[in-house]
Amino acid sequence: MKRGFASDNNSGIHPEILRAIDSANEGHAVGYGGDPVTEMAVQRFKQEFGEDIEVFFVFNGTGANVLGLSTLTHSFNSVICADTAHIQTDECGAPEKFTGCKLLPVETIKGKISPVGIRRYLHGFDFEHHSQPKIISISQVTELGTLYTVEEIRAITDLAHEYGLYVHMDGARLANAAVALDLPFRAFTVDAGVDVLSFGGTKNGMMMGEAVVFFNPELTKNTKYIRKQSMQLYSKMRFVSCQFLAYFNDELWKKNATHSNKMARLLEQEVKKIPTIQITQEVKANGVFAIVPSKIIPQLQEKYFFYVWDEQRSEVRWMTSFDTEEEDIINFAALIKSLV
Amino acid sequence: MKRGFASDNNSGIHPEILRAIDSANEGHAVGYGGDPVTEMAVQRFKQEFGEDIEVFFVFNGTGANVLGLSTLTHSFNSVICADTAHIQTDECGAPEKFTGCKLLPVETIKGKISPVGIRRYLHGFDFEHHSQPKIISISQVTELGTLYTVEEIRAITDLAHEYGLYVHMDGARLANAAVALDLPFRAFTVDAGVDVLSFGGTKNGMMMGEAVVFFNPELTKNTKYIRKQSMQLYSKMRFVSCQFLAYFNDELWKKNATHSNKMARLLEQEVKKIPTIQITQEVKANGVFAIVPSKIIPQLQEKYFFYVWDEQRSEVRWMTSFDTEEEDIINFAALIKSLV
Amino acid sequence: MKRGFASDNNSGIHPEILRAIDSANEGHAVGYGGDPVTEMAVQRFKQEFGEDIEVFFVFNGTGANVLGLSTLTHSFNSVICADTAHIQTDECGAPEKFTGCKLLPVETIKGKISPVGIRRYLHGFDFEHHSQPKIISISQVTELGTLYTVEEIRAITDLAHEYGLYVHMDGARLANAAVALDLPFRAFTVDAGVDVLSFGGTKNGMMMGEAVVFFNPELTKNTKYIRKQSMQLYSKMRFVSCQFLAYFNDELWKKNATHSNKMARLLEQEVKKIPTIQITQEVKANGVFAIVPSKIIPQLQEKYFFYVWDEQRSEVRWMTSFDTEEEDIINFAALIKSLV
Amino acid sequence: MKRGFASDNNSGIHPEILRAIDSANEGHAVGYGGDPVTEMAVQRFKQEFGEDIEVFFVFNGTGANVLGLSTLTHSFNSVICADTAHIQTDECGAPEKFTGCKLLPVETIKGKISPVGIRRYLHGFDFEHHSQPKIISISQVTELGTLYTVEEIRAITDLAHEYGLYVHMDGARLANAAVALDLPFRAFTVDAGVDVLSFGGTKNGMMMGEAVVFFNPELTKNTKYIRKQSMQLYSKMRFVSCQFLAYFNDELWKKNATHSNKMARLLEQEVKKIPTIQITQEVKANGVFAIVPSKIIPQLQEKYFFYVWDEQRSEVRWMTSFDTEEEDIINFAALIKSLV
Repeated sequence: MKRGFASDNNSGIHPEILRAIDSANEGHAVGYGGDPVTEMAVQRFKQEFGEDIEVFFVFNGTGANVLGLSTLTHSFNSVICADTAHIQTDECGAPEKFTGCKLLPVETIKGKISPVGIRRYLHGFDFEHHSQPKIISISQVTELGTLYTVEEIRAITDLAHEYGLYVHMDGARLANAAVALDLPFRAFTVDAGVDVLSFGGTKNGMMMGEAVVFFNPELTKNTKYIRKQSMQLYSKMRFVSCQFLAYFNDELWKKNATHSNKMARLLEQEVKKIPTIQITQEVKANGVFAIVPSKIIPQLQEKYFFYVWDEQRSEVRWMTSFDTEEEDIINFAALIKSLV
Repeated sequence: MKRGFASDNNSGIHPEILRAIDSANEGHAVGYGGDPVTEMAVQRFKQEFGEDIEVFFVFNGTGANVLGLSTLTHSFNSVICADTAHIQTDECGAPEKFTGCKLLPVETIKGKISPVGIRRYLHGFDFEHHSQPKIISISQVTELGTLYTVEEIRAITDLAHEYGLYVHMDGARLANAAVALDLPFRAFTVDAGVDVLSFGGTKNGMMMGEAVVFFNPELTKNTKYIRKQSMQLYSKMRFVSCQFLAYFNDELWKKNATHSNKMARLLEQEVKKIPTIQITQEVKANGVFAIVPSKIIPQLQEKYFFYVWDEQRSEVRWMTSFDTEEEDIINFAALIKSLV
Repeated sequence: MKRGFASDNNSGIHPEILRAIDSANEGHAVGYGGDPVTEMAVQRFKQEFGEDIEVFFVFNGTGANVLGLSTLTHSFNSVICADTAHIQTDECGAPEKFTGCKLLPVETIKGKISPVGIRRYLHGFDFEHHSQPKIISISQVTELGTLYTVEEIRAITDLAHEYGLYVHMDGARLANAAVALDLPFRAFTVDAGVDVLSFGGTKNGMMMGEAVVFFNPELTKNTKYIRKQSMQLYSKMRFVSCQFLAYFNDELWKKNATHSNKMARLLEQEVKKIPTIQITQEVKANGVFAIVPSKIIPQLQEKYFFYVWDEQRSEVRWMTSFDTEEEDIINFAALIKSLV
Repeated sequence: MKRGFASDNNSGIHPEILRAIDSANEGHAVGYGGDPVTEMAVQRFKQEFGEDIEVFFVFNGTGANVLGLSTLTHSFNSVICADTAHIQTDECGAPEKFTGCKLLPVETIKGKISPVGIRRYLHGFDFEHHSQPKIISISQVTELGTLYTVEEIRAITDLAHEYGLYVHMDGARLANAAVALDLPFRAFTVDAGVDVLSFGGTKNGMMMGEAVVFFNPELTKNTKYIRKQSMQLYSKMRFVSCQFLAYFNDELWKKNATHSNKMARLLEQEVKKIPTIQITQEVKANGVFAIVPSKIIPQLQEKYFFYVWDEQRSEVRWMTSFDTEEEDIINFAALIKSLV
């Protein structure tokens, strides 16, 4: 299918990733992560995030988020998150179903939450009638393609820790964030006070696979059981682990994310030239949000698949990915121009 | 790693499967199953099982079982199964956690359950204090490497339907069963009265992927939500779907299963020659169960990875797979011989 | 203990209710609701709400709400409610834990939600990533002591039904609402389009007991199992049923609620005379909300137990009940006056 | 209704209990257990079981069992119990639904489980595929009216503790056990190694109310939230607490249980005289199990309500209670005699 702008998960597998799967496909390997490839992949995460972590590989992003949240909560807890968070709007209630917790949505500004909005949920501690707040969850990159600065993250983690809460980061697009911030992963995760991280791979060139990285290893003594019970334990684990090795090797993650971020900026530039299109969010990573004349949307979608983000505002979301080509952008922008 | 006998999921990916992934890796595809490869794969299942089915692809066997059970139950139901069933002993309580149902274990004879054992749970209908029986779940091949005949399955499905229950079949090794019975899949599933099937791919040469096949499509109007909420919806679905296409193409499933069953029989023959080893189960598919002198187990395991099935009886389980080679069997048997 | 203003559930048991328990305490009775007293109580509800209902008695308000919600949802559904709703803020996540559903809070005006706020959640239907909206839940009386008019309820139920949703009413203080609206129960419940009702007894003079009234009996074929599994089935049911009979007899419910509403208005009047106190909500039923100088709150609480509703605004909640006496109000108002 | 033999919960409220409710019904009381009556009741439990306990009052037996199990487990744990246990057969799956755990039934001898049967489930520790055993649950009195001796309990608690498991006792009929054993409660609970106890009141003369007694208080820091989330927190708590005070006062519990046990023995004696009736279980407490000619069962049930325990064996269960009268037994036995 023609490359479109629906989602970075409409993209394929980066050739280096596929090569790694092929290479790992030799002989037998102990199942469920007891193999040497998995051990190497875990070590690679330790290089990135420090020795004092625990890493668990899972199938998908929802699984990663749920495993992170489950490990750190009881069913009587609550999870504070953006009202646009993936866990709030796009996981069909998996977090509630599996953790039993209440999710408390905070209104966002530029796709982000901040202490002001969070604070109104920080009450009722020790009061048995009240779901006990335990986690603040933020997405980096956010669902609106924007970014938290290190200072913004630190403000949230400090607040969380002051009240005895943990901070979860949904990093489905963590590589795009690292590139945009021009920082190593750890600078805006563990070093900024994050407690548990969903580290995404699928959206940035992997075939599938996410990692849940815990920065308080002492909290993870039950995580292996939770992973199994949440149906996220892969038998032939080596074939996810090898992808992560390839992902880190030669900084493939960075190349991919750099490219896809660049493509988003190019799209932004091209589209900005078209008078009737209004960019609605800062383009920091690989997403472009724009208000477009509603009548051209179906015509555009005939040629390029993408989602309407907010029907009422006629706001659309265009995602770029590692395999987007400049030509795709140019042609797409030209089509828009011709339609308005 | 050297090929061992721990599990058929210690094996790798069949080259044809990997080639299919490579071929599917072109351009973009709509996510979550809205792509043409998935549509083709679904059609392929309909060729196999008839038009009147619904198919849902998932990541792994536990996910497949839970999706099938969840679709057909409410939390106040019970699921009757073998006391050796994977859902009872190897899924860390995923079925209970996700469905809320009670699992009722039936003692097995040769790894199988039958109406006699099932009947004692068929009471308490309409009595609100009692978990309402709703599903009988059987595994084909069983966890002990044995097989239900069509007649045995029919006896169970007739009983189930008489009482308004559904029958779930855990077919993690369905291909091995089809080969051993020398029957098409449908002959001992839908045509024998089975209502929902976990159709396994991972253990027989696929990289990963299982299918849940429903033979009462009218029962599946909620299944897509359940799959998402149970964290089993794969974004880049085409890369599972293409594996199923390759799996059916040129009957790869049959070649693989035929080979692995053959290897199990060879192992049985070789081992039978060794006086102190006692084969404990009929070798019908790709598993060999044997009582071996306990003192040689650690020595054997140094060279070949496998599991002890029953410590007290000193009973071990040896699984063969599509990539087991004759030489592996000969060498392994020779090692046993040399140790006893 | 001195009568205070903390909650109408700090009150005791009305003597007529206790007399009914005493009268029902003769001989044996079939357990779990199979007794004639329960049958009579169910009939009494039918007189009130029409023949075409199903009624289930439970222990407490949280149990009632959860039983109503569970009966009408699957775990992949969402429940739209006020951000001040009891199910959202005071049940420690019981609805999420037991139903698996997502709760979606709507901001309130005068304690009430309306179609404008609700509509923003009415999207994503048929989209598997999205918790499917299934219930709108409103409280009558609201948690802020205000009331929905019949027209306001009708606007919500019409909207709900247009989208295929059900409407749940949390009627923990339904009697206070009926008295304040001067309407029979059915006029603002079933006749206004409500689908399921938590009918409260405990807060208005009963020892304990709530009823879940379903106005679509065909939806309740599983409710008896859900009640049992949710631990809300009382063995000696006659002792709740007899309370409901007494509650309806001679309109005890109306006498009690009329009195407690009257006491709230008296408190409002008395307190209004005190310059530094600001009443913050219309006093429609038996709750008075007021901003009081924060420094006098502890002094007041020494003598009369009540809750601070909003610490930051220094807003308190004073509830009256069936056994509040005029003297209590006069003395309390006098104390406030003396302290400010 | 005529007194029958269906269940001890078909009985009414002992007059002393009702008097206590009446006495507690004065003025207001802080809700949810913050009242002085509840404090006194807790102290009374400490007199009985020692200072180092935590007690939580709940509505009913299922709620008590689930609160005890939930407090001590994670969802990936398993609970080992008798195949006749109330939690296994009579709670409609509430334990699975609320805890997420797997229940593992052990076959019983004389209604009891023992280390031999339990041991087969004590494996798979630390193995992530396996629900981790965490609780052994026993009922005292058992569901078959039999009793564990202190030594038998100790054998189970020792085994449990050796493997890091806890022991839960379902004491719905604990008073009947204490009387039958002629021991104080603590001798066969905390002093015999039990970790958490469901202490029943409803079946022995209370209107309603059970207590969950934890003998490891350090394990209960979350229990108050779990009680609320499991819908077992009673707002007007004083009216359960006062019942427990009356229950302990003048050893009302002992009088009631002594009487009901005596009635069961009388029934046994009378029935033993009838040749065609075969008593099937030792009559230790207040239940009599007997095989009776199947044709007379409906005739008997016309006059006296009771349950058939095992249809195939034509075995019935007759329960006596605190309010059973000698005359009831004599008349019932005479009726049986006349029918056979």
